[in-house]
Amino acid sequence: MADKIFRINMTTLSTTVEDIPPAWAGHGGRGLTSTIVAAEVPPTCHPLGPNNKLVIAPGLLSGTPAANSGRLSIGAKSPLTGTIKESNAGGTAAQLLARCGCKAIILEGCPAGDSWYNLAVNPDGVTINIESDLAGKGNFELINTLANRLSSKQGIITIGLAGEMKMTAANISIKDPDGHLRSAGRGGLGAVMGSKRVKFISIDPKDGKVAIADPEKFKAANKIFSKALVDHPVSQGLGQYGTNVLVNIINESGGLPTRNFTAGQFAGHDKISGETMYDKIMERGGKPKHGCHPGCVIQCSQIYNDINKNYKTSGFEYESIWAMGADCGVDNLDHIAEADSLMDDLGLDTIETSVAMGVAMEAGVLAFGDGAGICRILKDEVGKGTGLGRIIGGGAASVGRAFGVTRVPVVKNQAIPAYDPRSIKGMGITYATSTQGADHTMGYSVATNILKVGGSVDPLSKVGQVELSRNLQIATAAIDSTGMCLFIAFAALDDTTCLPALIDMINARFGINLTGDDVVNLGKYILKTEKAFNEAAGFTKADDRLPEFFNYEPLPPHNVVWDFTGEEIDSFWNF
Amino acid sequence: MADKIFRINMTTLSTTVEDIPPAWAGHGGRGLTSTIVAAEVPPTCHPLGPNNKLVIAPGLLSGTPAANSGRLSIGAKSPLTGTIKESNAGGTAAQLLARCGCKAIILEGCPAGDSWYNLAVNPDGVTINIESDLAGKGNFELINTLANRLSSKQGIITIGLAGEMKMTAANISIKDPDGHLRSAGRGGLGAVMGSKRVKFISIDPKDGKVAIADPEKFKAANKIFSKALVDHPVSQGLGQYGTNVLVNIINESGGLPTRNFTAGQFAGHDKISGETMYDKIMERGGKPKHGCHPGCVIQCSQIYNDINKNYKTSGFEYESIWAMGADCGVDNLDHIAEADSLMDDLGLDTIETSVAMGVAMEAGVLAFGDGAGICRILKDEVGKGTGLGRIIGGGAASVGRAFGVTRVPVVKNQAIPAYDPRSIKGMGITYATSTQGADHTMGYSVATNILKVGGSVDPLSKVGQVELSRNLQIATAAIDSTGMCLFIAFAALDDTTCLPALIDMINARFGINLTGDDVVNLGKYILKTEKAFNEAAGFTKADDRLPEFFNYEPLPPHNVVWDFTGEEIDSFWNF
Repeated sequence: MADKIFRINMTTLSTTVEDIPPAWAGHGGRGLTSTIVAAEVPPTCHPLGPNNKLVIAPGLLSGTPAANSGRLSIGAKSPLTGTIKESNAGGTAAQLLARCGCKAIILEGCPAGDSWYNLAVNPDGVTINIESDLAGKGNFELINTLANRLSSKQGIITIGLAGEMKMTAANISIKDPDGHLRSAGRGGLGAVMGSKRVKFISIDPKDGKVAIADPEKFKAANKIFSKALVDHPVSQGLGQYGTNVLVNIINESGGLPTRNFTAGQFAGHDKISGETMYDKIMERGGKPKHGCHPGCVIQCSQIYNDINKNYKTSGFEYESIWAMGADCGVDNLDHIAEADSLMDDLGLDTIETSVAMGVAMEAGVLAFGDGAGICRILKDEVGKGTGLGRIIGGGAASVGRAFGVTRVPVVKNQAIPAYDPRSIKGMGITYATSTQGADHTMGYSVATNILKVGGSVDPLSKVGQVELSRNLQIATAAIDSTGMCLFIAFAALDDTTCLPALIDMINARFGINLTGDDVVNLGKYILKTEKAFNEAAGFTKADDRLPEFFNYEPLPPHNVVWDFTGEEIDSFWNF
Repeated sequence: MADKIFRINMTTLSTTVEDIPPAWAGHGGRGLTSTIVAAEVPPTCHPLGPNNKLVIAPGLLSGTPAANSGRLSIGAKSPLTGTIKESNAGGTAAQLLARCGCKAIILEGCPAGDSWYNLAVNPDGVTINIESDLAGKGNFELINTLANRLSSKQGIITIGLAGEMKMTAANISIKDPDGHLRSAGRGGLGAVMGSKRVKFISIDPKDGKVAIADPEKFKAANKIFSKALVDHPVSQGLGQYGTNVLVNIINESGGLPTRNFTAGQFAGHDKISGETMYDKIMERGGKPKHGCHPGCVIQCSQIYNDINKNYKTSGFEYESIWAMGADCGVDNLDHIAEADSLMDDLGLDTIETSVAMGVAMEAGVLAFGDGAGICRILKDEVGKGTGLGRIIGGGAASVGRAFGVTRVPVVKNQAIPAYDPRSIKGMGITYATSTQGADHTMGYSVATNILKVGGSVDPLSKVGQVELSRNLQIATAAIDSTGMCLFIAFAALDDTTCLPALIDMINARFGINLTGDDVVNLGKYILKTEKAFNEAAGFTKADDRLPEFFNYEPLPPHNVVWDFTGEEIDSFWNF
């Protein structure tokens, strides 16, 4: 059975199952969400109005046994950035949707009235159910409530209170195999789902399976691919310390943005590092290794317990810990874990919201270092939708506008994550040129600037950074189409067996003959499709710039500024 | 003595008096502020950072006896719109600055520290004084305090608490001959002044006078000019009922935006009309006619007393009354007067703030019709800088973003004023194409669409609207350079003696020989200079569009939508 498009119109409360237009057939994940958004969403529409569409697509390999292939792509016009947006996450939904024969969900229109809805997906299509009683519940309570109603094997895609309130820092969460949550964090897509009044999507694949054209070839390639992933030293570091292995590394480099981007090193780095976190996890009976989806061989997630050895959070990422930690001057890992848990429950992007807290600290709303204050604001202000809560829930730029702060680390209105562009210049090029606002996952130049993966480019020099970011952004766009976790990139950059094995798996899945060039061309097509959407929405070169303060505020300890010219940045697009 | 540029650098706390570059010599008012901003402000700078500049310029005829020549232009990059901005107002400052030999004030840089400053201007230049004790005071208390210190003849330019808090709806106020206030309202220029930590500017012309090259010619021309103004029927309506004469007229046309732009007529129109206001003024011992600056022969301002016959407000404009009235569903003129007074005291643009209240009403923050609620929010939230207060003080788009509202009447982030573009289509072209965001004063197509001044163009038809708005915008840019009140335009459009007399006065003032063509070319130059700044700041055709909801929500009673294509709108710039 060929995969289908599952379309839901919330204005008319009707659903259809449609054949896939030929032009979309070769796409999955980000390639498909961006293609559909570009084809069907008017670029100048209001992101929370009836003309925006939320597109949810498993990757090309989702639902197969391919290692690390469980990422789900979610796309729309972003209410945070105004650009096209794709945000992806783990959890079980991608694999389950693929097993439903669902190539993509297209969620369009906005319903009249005050009801909230569930979309129930199975291989036959989608039914729309009123579920207003579940509105107003946090993600954790919702998941627990549904655990009593649905089989534990069903997938769940949900929004928290932030998404219901259409806050532009709202994320979309996806249930993982243990009933915890993974989040498609960036760009406020939870607000788009909220604007369509869909509280959650449930996915029941029944006995659906993904067909593989050449199972033997697939199995052989997957073996090579998995070995390349497991053997890479970065994978091993990620397995032990999680992504938070980076706190000490980035601090040492002088690129750890501290106290709202006023310094590049944080005195309290050791108290929030991956090594310290590992020790606490072991002391408290947590789990240092944990996969966010079945089939992950890297297992960078973990179970972090509180001091009483009770579960507190998982998927406790470097960027979240940096944002609530160094960027807010907080060196108490338990405060950070509490805030992480609160944001997961509210359904808030931890990067956007925490960078917003850093800007609020600069504005004097609370003091740098006040981790308890962050938790209080999340609970009493954001969770209750007060004025201050809505300012914070609108993200870093929202706080900057409300309080007249000029040091606001955003590009295209989206918060800059955990790598200062002045001292890790390759990241600055990615932030400036990304089609989606500042986002480290769009082209992770840290790999080559700091981790020396895929060669070495001096992070403090401009030389080679544009080319590096370009190559990484093209490759990333292609990887984001496969359903693969981005962390396969380390092996792909250093191990010559990795990428051919990945391509062999795609070929074996569909009975086709893609080459390496095809994959590069796919990446280029995606970036150019996304850029064309943004241009039609009114974006220009002037938007491909970092905030002005990076030009005139030197960052300690290297005391460097952002010194790329506009012309140098714009040469990114020479391909 | 030739006029000079008075430059104040707040970073170094130093001032200079400079000769005028030849390219600036022929400019005044908006022509000069836009020329200087375009020359000296980096288009992509942060509007509240050290690289933005606040430019204050009297018009070409300011300080002369020319009738209605008391408008002061204030320009900068706007923190509300991100575009270049000029906002002008009456009061005595323009005339007094001209008498100081000040062609323009350029206020640049930002000081370190927490002090607040006064700039004291006299014919010798500017001194900078610390006045931190006056910070935190409302405009009325500030003016009263200064009345005890300064001669009543000194001019004062001030910001209220909104400007101190850098709210993007903050205005800049200018003392009028009676010690009341006039405001340069649009675009958040008060926040720019606040970012430079200047609480007020005082102007002491001493015995300075404006020289006139040919006094006899000037006097003769002024006589013709004044007569043209006084004789025009619109001037007479303005003198009796103020600008609020328009409530009944615009309501009758079906273009009075009501309850956040969901209808074009307001059932309570009669209770807030100019006629009703006139009756109340007369009953309560107010003044129906009042000039905002010496030499005004139209006198559209008034003194509105409360029910106890105590002074409540003046300069009680149609657009303010509409915004708090019909747009918020409030039909109590005393609530509206109270809110007007509160906004004047806080230093808030009445249009931006009141349209923001309408959006907040739609979001459920308060109910439509709750005039007392508006006053409470202004006092307890905006005035105290609470979260909700900062959201409202950020203007209509800020409220829309915070609460996820899609019906947000703004162009380039600035609130649409009192004329619905669906049923007064000429205004829609002005809102869309203006270099400064939605602003009726940029090209007042109402004149010809509704008032039948300068001919007649059907307000419900697209035919002729682009050309009308183009001609009006060009003429307005030129008028805004002279120091003239925009209300001379009615006479200029209908009375063939008016414009030649105005040009004769300029020629007599400077001993030059401008022609009518020169004036048109000046207007075109200003618009194109402003557009070039905006383009360098990243604005495109996509920004020259009305919000999407105007396209799909028909406006009662005519049940019309906004139906111009992008191509039709963009033809505005074919000159």
